[in-house]
Amino acid sequence: MTFSNCCANFFKLQSILFGFGFWIFIMPTAHAAETSKNFTLVVHGGSGTITRSSITPEIESQYRASLDRALKAGQKILAAGGTSVEAVVATIRVFEDDPLFNAGKGAVFTSEGKNELDASIMDGQTGMAGAVAGVVTVKNPIEAARSVMTKSKHVLMTSTGADEFAKAQKLDIVGPDYFFTQQRWDQLQSAKKRQQIEMDHDSKSKTSMSTEKEGAIQPWEVDYKYGTVGAVALDQHGNLAAGTSTGGLTNKLYGRVGDTPIIGAGTYADNRTVAVSCTGTGEFFMRGLVAYDVAARMKYAKANVSDAVDQTIQTELTDKKGRGGLIALDAKGNIKFGFNTEGMYRGYVKNNEAPVTMVYKD
Amino acid sequence: MTFSNCCANFFKLQSILFGFGFWIFIMPTAHAAETSKNFTLVVHGGSGTITRSSITPEIESQYRASLDRALKAGQKILAAGGTSVEAVVATIRVFEDDPLFNAGKGAVFTSEGKNELDASIMDGQTGMAGAVAGVVTVKNPIEAARSVMTKSKHVLMTSTGADEFAKAQKLDIVGPDYFFTQQRWDQLQSAKKRQQIEMDHDSKSKTSMSTEKEGAIQPWEVDYKYGTVGAVALDQHGNLAAGTSTGGLTNKLYGRVGDTPIIGAGTYADNRTVAVSCTGTGEFFMRGLVAYDVAARMKYAKANVSDAVDQTIQTELTDKKGRGGLIALDAKGNIKFGFNTEGMYRGYVKNNEAPVTMVYKD
Repeated sequence: MTFSNCCANFFKLQSILFGFGFWIFIMPTAHAAETSKNFTLVVHGGSGTITRSSITPEIESQYRASLDRALKAGQKILAAGGTSVEAVVATIRVFEDDPLFNAGKGAVFTSEGKNELDASIMDGQTGMAGAVAGVVTVKNPIEAARSVMTKSKHVLMTSTGADEFAKAQKLDIVGPDYFFTQQRWDQLQSAKKRQQIEMDHDSKSKTSMSTEKEGAIQPWEVDYKYGTVGAVALDQHGNLAAGTSTGGLTNKLYGRVGDTPIIGAGTYADNRTVAVSCTGTGEFFMRGLVAYDVAARMKYAKANVSDAVDQTIQTELTDKKGRGGLIALDAKGNIKFGFNTEGMYRGYVKNNEAPVTMVYKD
Repeated sequence: MTFSNCCANFFKLQSILFGFGFWIFIMPTAHAAETSKNFTLVVHGGSGTITRSSITPEIESQYRASLDRALKAGQKILAAGGTSVEAVVATIRVFEDDPLFNAGKGAVFTSEGKNELDASIMDGQTGMAGAVAGVVTVKNPIEAARSVMTKSKHVLMTSTGADEFAKAQKLDIVGPDYFFTQQRWDQLQSAKKRQQIEMDHDSKSKTSMSTEKEGAIQPWEVDYKYGTVGAVALDQHGNLAAGTSTGGLTNKLYGRVGDTPIIGAGTYADNRTVAVSCTGTGEFFMRGLVAYDVAARMKYAKANVSDAVDQTIQTELTDKKGRGGLIALDAKGNIKFGFNTEGMYRGYVKNNEAPVTMVYKD
């Protein structure tokens, strides 16, 4: 059926249904048909002190290749008409299985020498959400977050209970050996020596949370370049989704939970506005409700996605001396990267085009 | 010194400082002086199926007396020039020590027969916040939340780690016996029989979250009348604070965390807008970021506190079939109670006036 034939039939149907008494104006347009076939996927692999002088070309290539792999995994699903939720999960799984990133396999060690993982996901169509915090046996925490969203009535499950739930859902369960990587272990030993909590991606010269309040914990500082991962997607059906996954802080104490598993802080999605995934000094994102703040500026102040992200980063991070960034994707497919660090591992892909990856600010 | 003398001296000072070249217009007014001495405290003790037919006059009297005691504890601090944070903590401590409420002493039992407590607090002046989830040894979880805010760089600590932190801060630590109450134990046995997760205050006839997705967990229903507690305060210095404390759900599984320890979901405070504390079906408050949504409507859509609360309750609870309520207090001392349940234990006190308590909708 051609488009003009379709229109003719549509108007004929309206005539039959409503006679000539009144009309409901529902005009199918070629533009709408085109839009519904578009899809977009955006990812990040963490933000921090990422500069050309601190990263070798080889390491940059590794990151770009990983970002590319993750983008292609999600692109494949979206191209086949899959949902944004499916694409976000598939994309984040690639990051979680890659030791380069502080999520899943590459998670950092807590002060007790454990790997505690957090993840969250939100479906912009339904407003449903799921998250896990402090799981230690789940190979892909983003899968556990999705199960919380779709198979339970809860939003957030933590520690042992979340592990039990993941097992009951027949997700891939692994032993502690799975998460062991020599590099992360060495990082813990190094951090313990200095009695410091380290923030992924941040450098010794950056002590953005240096207001010390507690004996055992010193200013956050990091001398390596790994990070939290996230993805936001708009599928062919016009639905948004967002997801985030992390291994937290090296040498962390006291069952600290950051922004990643908190809906509205690290992750948010709503078809009416935007999908957002965050990375950075988690406490600032929690107090500022950074992910939801972007959506609220769009919903209530009628800001576009670019202005909303700029305003949120300025007021909730830069003004308050927090550091980090986020990826945002609105319901029309407009992308915005926002960060106040030197760099953010990031990328995007639109439709069947080639993925684009970026590392530095400029 | 009279007010007119004060003004004369003020203008003389300005003349001396700035000569006649230019003026900075800082006019002290009687109105501003009065405002700075005002204070307000608002509390809730949970919302749900609270009707005249379901509650005896004796039980109503007990609740009103408890609300009155809590309000007076906070009032005393505010009258003496104490901070809103101090008043919120003192008020919530009274609730936590009272077995009538599902917080502290009166906490319900999880499916494992434990009492897992959550609490959070936010300081509207600084934007700092603290929360604990799943603590089992802390007599007053609101104190632990305040310590997280003021003595650590974190926002949220969970389970064993949070208990260890509270102990390190020399807070009152108690054994599991402290939280044992026969009534709560009987509730657990009853719930276990029915294999149900019960929501505080809701009745058998209300199954607001009855879309069942998981074998072991049945629709939420409750046949008793206890609940989460919260307080919001505006002190004489013009600073807002909000706090919330709960014992969670009877027979809960899987380390479920509700909205109470989530900043922006169950608790939020910002001097520029409003202080909010919530109670109800936690997952709806988490997905809707209910506490922060009220603030965002005031900040970005320029709604007043009453309209903002009405809109949030409508869109994030009623439209989505969630149930519950909240207390809100803006920076000018305007109070708003919002709930879509039959009742909410609540009250307020202004300055040195007598506390006012309420139970039913009308």
